[in-house]
Amino acid sequence: MEDHFKRLSELLGEIVDLGEAAALLGWDQETYMPPGATQDRSMQLATLNKIVHEKFTSDEIGELIEKLKSEMSSVDPDSDEARLVKNVSREYDKQRKVPSNWVAEFSRVTSLAQEAWKKARQRSEFALFQPDLIKVLELRRQYAHYFAPYDHIYDPLLDDFEPGMKTADVKKVFAELRPKQVELVQAIMDSQYPVDDSVLHQEFDEQKQWDFGLEVIKAFGFNFDRGRQDKSTHPFTTSFGSNDVRITTRLKPDFLSVGLFGTLHEAGHGIYEQGFSSRLSRTPLANGASLAIHESQSRMWENLVGRNRPFWIGFYPRLQEYFPDQLGEVDLETFYRAINKVERSLIRTEADEVTYNLHIMLRFELELALIEQTLDVADLPQVWNTKMEEYLGITPPNDADGVLQDIHWSFGIFGYFSTYCLGNLIAGMLWENILSDIPDLEKQFERGKFDALWNWLNQKILQHGAKFEPAELIKRATGSELSAEPYVQYLNTKYGEIYQF
Amino acid sequence: MEDHFKRLSELLGEIVDLGEAAALLGWDQETYMPPGATQDRSMQLATLNKIVHEKFTSDEIGELIEKLKSEMSSVDPDSDEARLVKNVSREYDKQRKVPSNWVAEFSRVTSLAQEAWKKARQRSEFALFQPDLIKVLELRRQYAHYFAPYDHIYDPLLDDFEPGMKTADVKKVFAELRPKQVELVQAIMDSQYPVDDSVLHQEFDEQKQWDFGLEVIKAFGFNFDRGRQDKSTHPFTTSFGSNDVRITTRLKPDFLSVGLFGTLHEAGHGIYEQGFSSRLSRTPLANGASLAIHESQSRMWENLVGRNRPFWIGFYPRLQEYFPDQLGEVDLETFYRAINKVERSLIRTEADEVTYNLHIMLRFELELALIEQTLDVADLPQVWNTKMEEYLGITPPNDADGVLQDIHWSFGIFGYFSTYCLGNLIAGMLWENILSDIPDLEKQFERGKFDALWNWLNQKILQHGAKFEPAELIKRATGSELSAEPYVQYLNTKYGEIYQF
Repeated sequence: MEDHFKRLSELLGEIVDLGEAAALLGWDQETYMPPGATQDRSMQLATLNKIVHEKFTSDEIGELIEKLKSEMSSVDPDSDEARLVKNVSREYDKQRKVPSNWVAEFSRVTSLAQEAWKKARQRSEFALFQPDLIKVLELRRQYAHYFAPYDHIYDPLLDDFEPGMKTADVKKVFAELRPKQVELVQAIMDSQYPVDDSVLHQEFDEQKQWDFGLEVIKAFGFNFDRGRQDKSTHPFTTSFGSNDVRITTRLKPDFLSVGLFGTLHEAGHGIYEQGFSSRLSRTPLANGASLAIHESQSRMWENLVGRNRPFWIGFYPRLQEYFPDQLGEVDLETFYRAINKVERSLIRTEADEVTYNLHIMLRFELELALIEQTLDVADLPQVWNTKMEEYLGITPPNDADGVLQDIHWSFGIFGYFSTYCLGNLIAGMLWENILSDIPDLEKQFERGKFDALWNWLNQKILQHGAKFEPAELIKRATGSELSAEPYVQYLNTKYGEIYQF
Repeated sequence: MEDHFKRLSELLGEIVDLGEAAALLGWDQETYMPPGATQDRSMQLATLNKIVHEKFTSDEIGELIEKLKSEMSSVDPDSDEARLVKNVSREYDKQRKVPSNWVAEFSRVTSLAQEAWKKARQRSEFALFQPDLIKVLELRRQYAHYFAPYDHIYDPLLDDFEPGMKTADVKKVFAELRPKQVELVQAIMDSQYPVDDSVLHQEFDEQKQWDFGLEVIKAFGFNFDRGRQDKSTHPFTTSFGSNDVRITTRLKPDFLSVGLFGTLHEAGHGIYEQGFSSRLSRTPLANGASLAIHESQSRMWENLVGRNRPFWIGFYPRLQEYFPDQLGEVDLETFYRAINKVERSLIRTEADEVTYNLHIMLRFELELALIEQTLDVADLPQVWNTKMEEYLGITPPNDADGVLQDIHWSFGIFGYFSTYCLGNLIAGMLWENILSDIPDLEKQFERGKFDALWNWLNQKILQHGAKFEPAELIKRATGSELSAEPYVQYLNTKYGEIYQF
């Protein structure tokens, strides 16, 4: 067995190396690459990805997995080795089921769809994107069929981002969540104590914003010996092993929240990536357990920590030192309320903590209907707008700020959006446990200390990487199944206090 | 034939893509990579390089080359296609001759040798490096044997950097050059008109140095849509296709020459890489013809243009605008003499235009003797010091500033040094032709115009990439065989005027 495991590790190690190389090419493309290199870069990436795919789906890996699966019966099923074989076997089976001509066709169709989406969005005209979206959906349904039988045709799509999660699970938890969120938004809108966030809309020197952000995320535990931060148009996190984790941010000179909370958010992703146990290095287990788990980390540091009063009791005086003219006379309470302002808004990426989930649920429901073919693509803009009004009490004035706002569908990505919301819910579940396990947590935040939180997260989440499937990881960390309740509770308490209802 | 050529191009395209990915990893390592990632990065690079080697030395490529060689008889031997097959065939044969266990052993031994060299250099104690150097030399001799028969055992080593060049050729041209260089240095040292370069040793704001450098290299023709400049400890140029060429520089706040001429030098390399015809893209012909040809371009822009009076007639007023306090009162002639000061110095990388070649010739002779085994490794420091005295009239006070100053031998690199000097000589040959083909060249420089020079270089050198072997390229560009004469002439004229002898 040892020989087979060693050989598998060797092959996986090379595949991981190549994947990390591709990730660096992707990072560079968004940060430093000169504009003229776009076409060459896409060739380099295509070649790397092709080789990674060929190597991973090779017969040799299949044979090793088969041998190891029978040999593993004597090994602790919770050992890294057993879990690695399980994880790789699962992914291998999935990748082998998808024929390479589908992959080629998907790549061709989505490449055109992206162009069409760009044009449609520019002109705010959904009809320009419609024919491409129809083709993409057809291919996505075909993709799902490769994994038949399934409970729901959307399951295989979801599974790519949330291993093991079923459509029915998401539907159930969203059905529980939606009315409570709608109700909460309504209560806030009816509040007699509106929030004024004008203090955030002043001139803030970008270098100082950058420096303050670094100070905070260093305190959070983001390690700059094994990572760095750069600027990019759209903030993201990537890594080439947990010793080289790169986050990016963007700064707006006239609005503090964009850069600040963007930085904290990406640092959350980065802290996760830096936390994978070194035992998992150069294996596919040195990855996030799922996108939702990843998002639980980013949203936790951004919102549950970063928009929390105790954190600002510790850090607000420091922020005032950076910006004495802008914030010297602004008291903590005004600032705290400003960063937690809730608004009915059109754009998901700019949505606040409370309304965000509603943007997501809307997309999930529409995706489902499109894949199920219970919604005609031509009707999509209309249904989008109706749901916006129903959930958020606001109707997009045009397609660009409505159905065309997100790039995801043009990439052929379906099953992804819900992970943003699930991440919030998981963060809520973790937070409930953290508060009970670390009674003086908020006192520690007031003193700028975050190591108890980091230690808790590391023990329960970070170090395990993708060793456990998300449902099992959540169960191990919290003792519970996925539930919206703790997050709803958290929102109600926090915003009930801010908006005094 | 077309099918075979198409298939070969496809395979080579992928190999080029992977090589470019590896180059990006290398660039990142020297510019932005966090320190903790060193070990992971070396694994990623090892995997990429291994795959590149496997793919390039595959039987399929060998078979395609064989087929194409016979099929190519009907094709113009100067066509890109015919030259590509010739180039690839040559490189394929070379790489197939070296057994993979030699490669593994060489990698192991040089990795240790680098550590030993670092320690030896730190303690300035050659004996600490000696045992490793002996092993490296043994491996290098073994490497040469794989290419037997040869005229000289050093030929195969030289050929890795200067395809087709023989040891005898270098010996001949160096024998002609050396006494003339020694004599010139002596004349300068005896001059009654010494140069004072203290104006260069003032405080120069780094950002302003950076900005001025960019202004100059943009005027030279370095294209920032297809390239960029960053900072690194040791300046270098790399590229990932001619649409993405990266140069680096380093700036010293108290010495203007380091950053300025470093920038011009790397820009010369970069302009070469950006100039390869797009017809050669994704083939091994999209490379410099050799290291000496590459160096001819960097040294030309750095020295023959950048330390030339007409260039500064154009750009000195601009430099004075950047640094009015430092240079506002310094006249052009004082500045021009300062940047061309000749000194007897210990360190190759800091040597001026006149003494530089002597540093190189010394290394070439010692390498030759080591590989020929006519010099015992134990005697190396002594012989180094003796030759330094003989050629440069100066004796190193210790090994660190003598025989241990360069990292190359610890990497197992032999045959490389001479290309620096050959580059100067080739630059001299090209320059002679350029001056005669573009009579008003220097007038153009005075007006900050460099496009006539770029056009000449592009027509004769840049666009061809590695299509022609260096000797043929030089012949096509200048009508002559390699000769030291034009460069000697250039130096004598220029420095005769500056030092008035």
